[in-house]
Amino acid sequence: MEPEVIQVVSDALHEAWGNPSSNYIAGAMAKAIINQSRQNVARMVGGKAEDIVFTSGGTEANNLVLHTAVEHFKENCSAAEHSEGHKNGCAGLPHIITSNVEHDSIRLTAKHLQAVGKADVTCVPVSKVTARVEVEDVIAAVRPNTCLISVMLANNETGVIMPIQEICQRIKSLNKQQAQLRILLHTDAAQALGKIPVDVQELGVDYLTIVGHKFYAPRIGALYVNGPGTKTPVYPMLFGGGQERNFRPGTENTPMIAGLGKAAELVTANLSHYQSHMLNIQMYLEERLQDVFRDKIRFNSHYPGSEILPNTCNVSILGPVLQGWRVLSNCRRLLASVGAACHSASGNRPSHILLSSGVPTEVAANALRLSVGRETTKEDVDAVVEDLRETVQLLENMN
Amino acid sequence: MEPEVIQVVSDALHEAWGNPSSNYIAGAMAKAIINQSRQNVARMVGGKAEDIVFTSGGTEANNLVLHTAVEHFKENCSAAEHSEGHKNGCAGLPHIITSNVEHDSIRLTAKHLQAVGKADVTCVPVSKVTARVEVEDVIAAVRPNTCLISVMLANNETGVIMPIQEICQRIKSLNKQQAQLRILLHTDAAQALGKIPVDVQELGVDYLTIVGHKFYAPRIGALYVNGPGTKTPVYPMLFGGGQERNFRPGTENTPMIAGLGKAAELVTANLSHYQSHMLNIQMYLEERLQDVFRDKIRFNSHYPGSEILPNTCNVSILGPVLQGWRVLSNCRRLLASVGAACHSASGNRPSHILLSSGVPTEVAANALRLSVGRETTKEDVDAVVEDLRETVQLLENMN
Repeated sequence: MEPEVIQVVSDALHEAWGNPSSNYIAGAMAKAIINQSRQNVARMVGGKAEDIVFTSGGTEANNLVLHTAVEHFKENCSAAEHSEGHKNGCAGLPHIITSNVEHDSIRLTAKHLQAVGKADVTCVPVSKVTARVEVEDVIAAVRPNTCLISVMLANNETGVIMPIQEICQRIKSLNKQQAQLRILLHTDAAQALGKIPVDVQELGVDYLTIVGHKFYAPRIGALYVNGPGTKTPVYPMLFGGGQERNFRPGTENTPMIAGLGKAAELVTANLSHYQSHMLNIQMYLEERLQDVFRDKIRFNSHYPGSEILPNTCNVSILGPVLQGWRVLSNCRRLLASVGAACHSASGNRPSHILLSSGVPTEVAANALRLSVGRETTKEDVDAVVEDLRETVQLLENMN
Repeated sequence: MEPEVIQVVSDALHEAWGNPSSNYIAGAMAKAIINQSRQNVARMVGGKAEDIVFTSGGTEANNLVLHTAVEHFKENCSAAEHSEGHKNGCAGLPHIITSNVEHDSIRLTAKHLQAVGKADVTCVPVSKVTARVEVEDVIAAVRPNTCLISVMLANNETGVIMPIQEICQRIKSLNKQQAQLRILLHTDAAQALGKIPVDVQELGVDYLTIVGHKFYAPRIGALYVNGPGTKTPVYPMLFGGGQERNFRPGTENTPMIAGLGKAAELVTANLSHYQSHMLNIQMYLEERLQDVFRDKIRFNSHYPGSEILPNTCNVSILGPVLQGWRVLSNCRRLLASVGAACHSASGNRPSHILLSSGVPTEVAANALRLSVGRETTKEDVDAVVEDLRETVQLLENMN
């Protein structure tokens, strides 16, 4: 977390203890902090304050979108049944299109909906050349009963940026042409925010998932919805005391929301600086790795024609004893993961994201997901590369 | 929040930044903090660490219980259908019993399940004499398809303590006798924790809702489940990265969980002290109110034969211009609500909780929900009573 963000969270812990729904002054103060944060978060993504629904995190935001899509389909089709008795697309289950490299909070939610017979799901595979979801593949997957397309803005392991704007443009013209159900458009921007410009207007999405701890904010999240309850449906998953206009009730976590707002403000103000710094360091890291490991190095985040995030360097050092987990557990300074942290329990199997992106199994098994940050220096890079060099030497000599 | 709790949250903000699912040391540190908190929260309610599932708050915990009960019924009955083709209780919808004075996160969730045809709900009215849910009324409401009984441990407006232990005993012997579906037992202990002893073994519940900000902890919560996934079912509402053993995925909010654990530790260590202090101050407050307002005072938290929490003093000062909202908005020092903070938007209507508890409309309209805390002193009470005296005088003179 940024020190300024920690400060805001700490201040709120001390001062904004009032219940934001209470009428007395401490409550009003907490409410004002929440409103300010809502504006800051909205500004970061180019939306309006009323488009932001705070959630406990990205997992909840993603689940809420899939839940909404299914409920919206059901309600629309049941309404159609009661009026004309028939609506195009209402035969069958709601159909969701997503990719095969989504975060588990999309992937497993979709899988669950399919398993319990509440939805049909198509996981469009990313191209094994570009590691990107290709627009034509998404369009080809559309059915009359498609109710949602959910594709991440940038992948968390490869850093590859997906063509969300193009997907949205194509689907929106489909939505206009056909007398069928509107296809809702969602992107999980967890990985992209704070690293590249993200603008909901430009992208053309109906929903966008915001995850605090990915941009130096605390571990809460938000869902951007383009006109929640008016232009775009939201079907709550939780019921309770009416907070967040009933879209997401529960007494507000004021300090964490305050921190999210501050971190968003920092992104709005400093994104181009953050971005160019990370890009600089990322390029330096790749150069140094190339210098040291030469023909033994493979970049799992380089794909022809695909742009990637400026912070992600997914790399494999080739060799029979250089599996990612083995290298990391012998490094003395480097803190990194072989894949998404949530998958750490699944241990030493190569990442299915990399395999899906066309990385050969023996290369994927050696993958290290190196991330650079706002504060990473060239000296840090030198130290980490030296750490890796020594570790590789050690492992190779042991065998 | 207790200063010690704020300190723990702040320390975690600075030091426990690692992803608890990561294998490196900062991740392990965060994980250790979470495990320690889980133990502390479990100890506070007399459960085991593995019985605690952290949630974003009480609203989510309560929603999760109702969701689980309905899903469990469906799965059980569908399993029964596939084996013998018939099971007692499986005709019809799952039936939920609750009371008519529950928090909105139970009341509206149950109402929603009923509205969408997923459950039948009986809201057992509390006695207009005792303001308590009476055990016989609960038992009388049981049907062959009853799947859950959810009654709060203590009411948030009247402070009345409900006979949860007796309800659980009676239902457990029913569960044993009958060849029907097991009735699951839940209590929302949001209001009771930190004020009276709460022990899941003694109560005999399957689920118990824990809400941080009600016992000087941050705004997160937890659900106690007696053997989650083994002895007692949990059907997750969210799907994602596998955290909380998949019962509630999403990257853990380490600092808030740390604070919850610390606050629970304080409750375990100091409850009898907290309780006797609050009781002392509550009695002093009631005496002073009685002294000053004499026959104009009505205590909405006094019911024959019912015990109440030591912190709650729900009181009305009788008079045609002394509506609760009017009194509070003219007080200079007193910070209080007329009812639950979540209902503040519904404005000036008398509390349905008080009306349900037998308080006449004109008395309920004047209700003030005064709470005393760990730090409230007799001097504070004197100041507040003087504040009320002046306000009442002012309002009566203006008219």
